[in-house]
Amino acid sequence: MLTSIGAHPFLLPAPVLIVGVYDEFDRPNIMTAAWGGICASQPPCVAVSLRRATWTHHAILERKAFTINLPDENQVAKADLAGIITGAPSKEENKEVEKAHKFQRLQWTPVTAEHVDTPYIAECPVVLEMALRHTLEIGSHTQFVGEVMDIKVAPSMLSPEGLPMPQAIKPILFSPLTREYFSLGPFLARAFSVGKTLK
Amino acid sequence: MLTSIGAHPFLLPAPVLIVGVYDEFDRPNIMTAAWGGICASQPPCVAVSLRRATWTHHAILERKAFTINLPDENQVAKADLAGIITGAPSKEENKEVEKAHKFQRLQWTPVTAEHVDTPYIAECPVVLEMALRHTLEIGSHTQFVGEVMDIKVAPSMLSPEGLPMPQAIKPILFSPLTREYFSLGPFLARAFSVGKTLK
Repeated sequence: MLTSIGAHPFLLPAPVLIVGVYDEFDRPNIMTAAWGGICASQPPCVAVSLRRATWTHHAILERKAFTINLPDENQVAKADLAGIITGAPSKEENKEVEKAHKFQRLQWTPVTAEHVDTPYIAECPVVLEMALRHTLEIGSHTQFVGEVMDIKVAPSMLSPEGLPMPQAIKPILFSPLTREYFSLGPFLARAFSVGKTLK
Repeated sequence: MLTSIGAHPFLLPAPVLIVGVYDEFDRPNIMTAAWGGICASQPPCVAVSLRRATWTHHAILERKAFTINLPDENQVAKADLAGIITGAPSKEENKEVEKAHKFQRLQWTPVTAEHVDTPYIAECPVVLEMALRHTLEIGSHTQFVGEVMDIKVAPSMLSPEGLPMPQAIKPILFSPLTREYFSLGPFLARAFSVGKTLK
């Protein structure tokens, strides 16, 4: 028998995604999000949802592009902080001095993407370059559906066949209700294969 | 320096979701999907994308409801098979005899959800009851945005505070390009907290 715990935003796990954009002052900015997932294969599309109050939200609508950066588990503190602090300039600060504020704070390097007008994090092991295709208003959040224009991966994390190897990448997983981060665990089974043992 | 691997549907990890519906013959049916994620907090919404050719696709449009069942790692072979075989009746078969075909094949028990007209899998540790709120056509896939009406969890997997404990649930993670399943790994850090150590 299962126990009801009410209605919550929940899946297990949620991915840890760092969204990159140029803001209205042409500053590279980032924020961490966990409300997202793949949403189509052809063209390859990934969705990420942000609250309208975020500094990144407006920038995505303006630029029609963003990156999704996957941090590795050694970057968990930086990834967490990128979701706590805002990239918006304070009223007092000099916008020139504060260029790339959040990148500087996190000691990460912004690199302009190849296919879209948006920055990625040089130090992240996997980066997706995204062109905005749809926006959908869903209550508290706007869902941004982006088409994947290219994926960039650290060469040492590619298999001999050129595929990104999860155990080398060491992505961070988020547990929404307990608000915890987890590592990727051991290999379990081959997909589209292990089920056939039941036939 | 990162290496370009081209455009693919990719995130790491993707969740393993088993979508439950009643089909047009009132048979409980399920299929496994990995293209999905949380997409809003208020109201709590989760999206899952399915190809139009799937038997489940039509049923969600018809019933305006579905469940998302999270299997545990001991159920990986069944979860995989539920994504390989179709729940559609063959032309030859007697639809009465084949009632609950896929549930029977997998030796799982269908239970009618409490809040929506749709079945869940009694043996899964976590179940989300979903009411369809939006559909979005994205190339190969239709994205179904559902509002979470309730979450049901196996009581032994709840913390003293009533939260679903990831390490008890043991969800299955999917790696899209290598087509592998992984376990959840060890606890890494507290979210909205570990980043503050960098301040």
